[in-house]
Amino acid sequence: MKRTLLACLLLTAAWGAAADSHVAFPTTYRGDFHVKSMVIQQGHPLFEAVGGMHHLYANKKALAGYKAGGKFADGAVITFDLFEAVAQDNAIAEGAHKAVLVMARDSRKFKATDGWGYQVFDPKTRKASLDAKAAAECHACHLQQKDKGFVFSALRD
Amino acid sequence: MKRTLLACLLLTAAWGAAADSHVAFPTTYRGDFHVKSMVIQQGHPLFEAVGGMHHLYANKKALAGYKAGGKFADGAVITFDLFEAVAQDNAIAEGAHKAVLVMARDSRKFKATDGWGYQVFDPKTRKASLDAKAAAECHACHLQQKDKGFVFSALRD
Repeated sequence: MKRTLLACLLLTAAWGAAADSHVAFPTTYRGDFHVKSMVIQQGHPLFEAVGGMHHLYANKKALAGYKAGGKFADGAVITFDLFEAVAQDNAIAEGAHKAVLVMARDSRKFKATDGWGYQVFDPKTRKASLDAKAAAECHACHLQQKDKGFVFSALRD
Repeated sequence: MKRTLLACLLLTAAWGAAADSHVAFPTTYRGDFHVKSMVIQQGHPLFEAVGGMHHLYANKKALAGYKAGGKFADGAVITFDLFEAVAQDNAIAEGAHKAVLVMARDSRKFKATDGWGYQVFDPKTRKASLDAKAAAECHACHLQQKDKGFVFSALRD
């Protein structure tokens, strides 16, 4: 009985720790609302990090947050879907899928970063690559958008 | 009685004629599925017609058509949302909203163009600008995609 209780406690502790730092892969983001797209080219300060063509998708709660001028409720998820930008014959098209970046809102889980969790996933393996320090660096930059709920993008008029 | 009948017939005929050539503005397209995006630049053969950054959106029936390898059912609507492409500081962003282009599927109404109706709308006034001849020219180009349901775009893998 004691051993079972101990196992349960350890399991709970482990799950709790994982939950605190964990941003889930946004499995349904391809059906989410398309907010906007952009091409980041060589020479841009973000080229190394997110060079290519990206599309931003908002789930229902994130869409409501954009519409409310940056008041994002827990459960809001914004996905930044990144592709190679293939420039050819005077056109720029989507190339290989580079990464899936996510901002997920949970004011309790991600209290240290003002309620936003950040993660970068490999699009094929769905393996996450950001540690807590890197996520904090994401947020350090997003801090300049504090009055827009820490989000850079906006809906079109 | 005769006059009422005549009025009804005239009304039906007028509605029928309008319906035959009419593609409706896709009022809910912003919530539709985002298929892909592309930037068409100066020097591209389509620059005069659709230069800028565009996003393709599919309503539910159109999405099912893409998934079925190009078998589009009546009611499928594909929207080509066109913006100025603003190149600045090594990035390309969406600028002014230029036009909303539409392909709408109705095998009866648009029999002359293999079941697809084509239209171009002003995004602000929603005024349509294509006549039947111009729509036929759209289709003449889309004919090369006959084995894909006359549609150029495709879902990503």
